[in-house]
Amino acid sequence: MTVKMIWTTCSVEGATQLARTMLEKKVIACANIFEPHQALYWWDGKICEDREVTIIMETNEDMLNVALEELQKQHSYDTPKIMVFSPSNVPESFSKWLDKEVNGQTNN
Amino acid sequence: MTVKMIWTTCSVEGATQLARTMLEKKVIACANIFEPHQALYWWDGKICEDREVTIIMETNEDMLNVALEELQKQHSYDTPKIMVFSPSNVPESFSKWLDKEVNGQTNN
Amino acid sequence: MTVKMIWTTCSVEGATQLARTMLEKKVIACANIFEPHQALYWWDGKICEDREVTIIMETNEDMLNVALEELQKQHSYDTPKIMVFSPSNVPESFSKWLDKEVNGQTNN
Repeated sequence: MTVKMIWTTCSVEGATQLARTMLEKKVIACANIFEPHQALYWWDGKICEDREVTIIMETNEDMLNVALEELQKQHSYDTPKIMVFSPSNVPESFSKWLDKEVNGQTNN
Repeated sequence: MTVKMIWTTCSVEGATQLARTMLEKKVIACANIFEPHQALYWWDGKICEDREVTIIMETNEDMLNVALEELQKQHSYDTPKIMVFSPSNVPESFSKWLDKEVNGQTNN
Repeated sequence: MTVKMIWTTCSVEGATQLARTMLEKKVIACANIFEPHQALYWWDGKICEDREVTIIMETNEDMLNVALEELQKQHSYDTPKIMVFSPSNVPESFSKWLDKEVNGQTNN
C-alpha cells in the first residue's frame, strides 16, 4: 500500500511522548525526531522565535486519516504545522513492513 | 490556498538572517532552521565537505514565485539547492493561518 | 532533467561512508547528513528506540534507479527506509549542476 510521510513541528517538551503515543496506537510505524532547532514565524503581528522539534512519521494510505486525527488530538498547538508527503518510490520491503505494523491490532 | 514547502541548504553563517529577511518581507509565514550538519558534494571535480544548515519554509501557491525570487536574491550561493515540495494534505487551520500571514502587508 | 530527492535513515556509524560511497560512484551529486537523532519504531512486536541519522541526497531522474540499487546495496539495514520525493520546482542552475555531476564519468 502507498507510504505516506507525515511531517510536523512541535514544542521540544512532549515531542517524544507525541511520537510514542502515535506508535502505541499503531497509526504510524516509525518516527524520527530531529534535534531541537530554531523556528521563526509570524504570530499576532510580530515575528516570534522558538526552539522546536520536527517529527517525521510514516504510515500508509489506509491509516492516514486516522493518524492525522490522532496527531491533531495529541498536538499541543492550536494551529499545528502538519504536512503529508507522498514518496514516488519506496523499497517494497519497507512498504510491506509498514503495512504489517500499522494495520496490526491497536492498543486503543 | 495550496501550501508550498521551500527547502534550501545554506552556510551556517547568515542562515537565521536569510530566514528572517524572508519573514520580514512576508513571502513566507514560518521557517525551521535545522542544526548545522555535514554536507558532501561534488564541486570542481572533487568531493567537498562543509557544515551546512537546512532551512524549511512555508508559503502558499500565490506567493511562491515571489518567495523563490527573494530567496535566490538573498542566498549566498551561486548555485543554491532550492526545492519546492507540495504537501498533499494540511489541516485547514494551518493553511488559513499561512494565507493570512503571507498575504498581509509587506515591509518592502 | 528532473531532480529527485532520496531520503533515508541509517545508523549513526557508517552514515558518512554511505553518503561518500554514493558520491564516489557519482550516482548522487550531494548529500546532507542530519545530526543523530531519536528514532522510534515497531520491531518484533515492540516499540524500539535508537539513535539514527537522516541522509538527504539529490540525483536526477536518469540516475535514480542506479542510485537506489546502490543505496540498498550499501545500506546496513535489512528493511531500510528509503523514500524518493520529486520537487515541483528547482532553480535551473541547480538542476544543470546536478546533471553535470551525476552523469559524469563514474569511479566504478
